[in-house]
Amino acid sequence: MADNGLIVLGLDPGTRVTGYGIVREISGQAELVATGTIRTPAKKDMATRMGVIFDKLQELIRLHSPVEAAIESVFVSKNPSSAIKLGQARGVCMAACATNNIPMGEYEPTKVKKNLVGVGSAPKSQVAFMVAHCLGIKKPDWPEDASDALAIAICHLNERRMRKLTGR
Amino acid sequence: MADNGLIVLGLDPGTRVTGYGIVREISGQAELVATGTIRTPAKKDMATRMGVIFDKLQELIRLHSPVEAAIESVFVSKNPSSAIKLGQARGVCMAACATNNIPMGEYEPTKVKKNLVGVGSAPKSQVAFMVAHCLGIKKPDWPEDASDALAIAICHLNERRMRKLTGR
Repeated sequence: MADNGLIVLGLDPGTRVTGYGIVREISGQAELVATGTIRTPAKKDMATRMGVIFDKLQELIRLHSPVEAAIESVFVSKNPSSAIKLGQARGVCMAACATNNIPMGEYEPTKVKKNLVGVGSAPKSQVAFMVAHCLGIKKPDWPEDASDALAIAICHLNERRMRKLTGR
Repeated sequence: MADNGLIVLGLDPGTRVTGYGIVREISGQAELVATGTIRTPAKKDMATRMGVIFDKLQELIRLHSPVEAAIESVFVSKNPSSAIKLGQARGVCMAACATNNIPMGEYEPTKVKKNLVGVGSAPKSQVAFMVAHCLGIKKPDWPEDASDALAIAICHLNERRMRKLTGR
């Protein structure tokens, strides 16, 4: 049987911009499938904007058939108003994956950084550098939110491999 | 043409319990179509729970074909952690409606109370009483979250009628 690899969808939710990164692991090597951002129309009401995120995720899932997904754990120091907004976009991402039977892993932001760079407090630029390096891309041309989503997808693949090796 | 009435879906989102209330307005009179709660499995991860809410809403929408929806505006005094959770359930409700092209009205909690009872600070029991009264139900047997969702649906119908009358 041909090894089509394991396809993982990483998500960096936001009501304005949601980053996505789809990565395939084939023979232990991560490769880029697709990445980008979902931008919601700022002048529309929140429900319409959440619908835009959902519909685009449905399209991406149909197109690329990821079998697992990953997202960052909640960052709790935000103020309640922005926390609700962030929560809304997170809920949409979760529902889009769950309704397509795609299990979702959650990783703390420091865990993602530590996984990719080795240091939980690594700056964003270093994480972005490692994302491109892991995927073998010399001149990445994706926006920051897309890079963050790719980082989560790669972290999930690494953690998954580790769990398999250690039998956890 | 027969008047099948306007069917509205009211939602009271929560990660643990989401209340729904489906009301039909026919010849200026609100009548109950369906109401209840969506309970999510507490032991499952958040994404799975959000999927349960989404799938159940999809089912309700398919079954009852609401043409408009309504939800309470964000309540901002919660702490960031519960605000994120509330936001997640809200996002799922919004996406479920938007992906089915159901426009959603948002009303502040005090607006809903004022609309039904006449006083923005009315106690929950009084709102529940008016919900049952508006729907012509003598002995309501639904839980509080369902009643809250029905209140939002009825508020939406009333506000809608008012807007139509005043041409706003």
